[in-house]
Amino acid sequence: MSAVVQMSIFPLDKGPSLSGYVKDAVAEIEHSGLPHAVGPMGTVIEGEWGEIAALVGRCLETMGRSSERVYLTLAVDWRRGPDGRLEGKIASLEGKLGHGVRR
Amino acid sequence: MSAVVQMSIFPLDKGPSLSGYVKDAVAEIEHSGLPHAVGPMGTVIEGEWGEIAALVGRCLETMGRSSERVYLTLAVDWRRGPDGRLEGKIASLEGKLGHGVRR
Amino acid sequence: MSAVVQMSIFPLDKGPSLSGYVKDAVAEIEHSGLPHAVGPMGTVIEGEWGEIAALVGRCLETMGRSSERVYLTLAVDWRRGPDGRLEGKIASLEGKLGHGVRR
Amino acid sequence: MSAVVQMSIFPLDKGPSLSGYVKDAVAEIEHSGLPHAVGPMGTVIEGEWGEIAALVGRCLETMGRSSERVYLTLAVDWRRGPDGRLEGKIASLEGKLGHGVRR
Repeated sequence: MSAVVQMSIFPLDKGPSLSGYVKDAVAEIEHSGLPHAVGPMGTVIEGEWGEIAALVGRCLETMGRSSERVYLTLAVDWRRGPDGRLEGKIASLEGKLGHGVRR
Repeated sequence: MSAVVQMSIFPLDKGPSLSGYVKDAVAEIEHSGLPHAVGPMGTVIEGEWGEIAALVGRCLETMGRSSERVYLTLAVDWRRGPDGRLEGKIASLEGKLGHGVRR
Repeated sequence: MSAVVQMSIFPLDKGPSLSGYVKDAVAEIEHSGLPHAVGPMGTVIEGEWGEIAALVGRCLETMGRSSERVYLTLAVDWRRGPDGRLEGKIASLEGKLGHGVRR
Repeated sequence: MSAVVQMSIFPLDKGPSLSGYVKDAVAEIEHSGLPHAVGPMGTVIEGEWGEIAALVGRCLETMGRSSERVYLTLAVDWRRGPDGRLEGKIASLEGKLGHGVRR
């Protein structure tokens, strides 16, 4: 079983420049040791739901120390079967397209 | 502290008619006793993140018994301060608009 | 054909109190005449994709007049078949559950 | 002005293997010529809202030819200012972290 999760998190009370706050969540994700890939609109993480939920809790806690209001979105693709889907999902798409995609 | 969470969950391997599966998640939400409001595109729930995360885990477990692949989205509005925001957020909006909204 | 769309939109540079800005988007939605239902985490709208996309553009334009940075999420359930799904989706769920849901 | 948009789109009536259908949307995105980056949970695209909305319409049209029901999510980060944010957002984060991120 594996959950591949796209996560976006940011404060709502810090003005338009967010990367100085988002970095705290990325540091928590890196510290978790879970496979992940950072993108322009969020980070994709692979793990069991319990691991992901605990990590999200730590991100909220960390960001909640400096912010009064935090917004967070998760999209979860849960599937029975083997892990390694961060890379596998894109490889499968490339196989169907017949060419490599821009990442 | 309060998290107001919009949750949508559905199986990806059961064809285009989803309500027969979505009902299992709604039953879990109702069973949780957390304040909630069911809408056409998902259910909004209010609680602590730990409560919400455990409830999401039960929904995934229940739906994972009959489905091989499940998709789930969460949008979380986390805020320091009092509870009761399911109703409060809409009331505040109506106050700013100066009229009641269609629900 | 019908798209049922959950839309959330808010400025990122106005601090933690958002309803005074969100009201401008809700006013655009009301002005559109499209069937809709306002909830605590966003508004659900039904229409053709072209109508929805134009409405989203007007919301961005309106909110962009007072804000430098705006965040917007859409979840779209597109389906061949008749309209009237704002109410129909919940009614179908209630039929499967065998009881009315809390809204 | 620039919108950076995370887009995920998939059919709901084709069973659990989706890449054979998702590829049609990715081909439309590639054909659009807009800057984009494909990830495991969706594709991030940069453009004006009108360009993005038209592209989304073409993706729905293409996927709607073979599917009866399609699900689509968009997260839009709209900002006044220069383009080039696909790379710039990650570079800014790396600057704040003081190290490169895993992509």
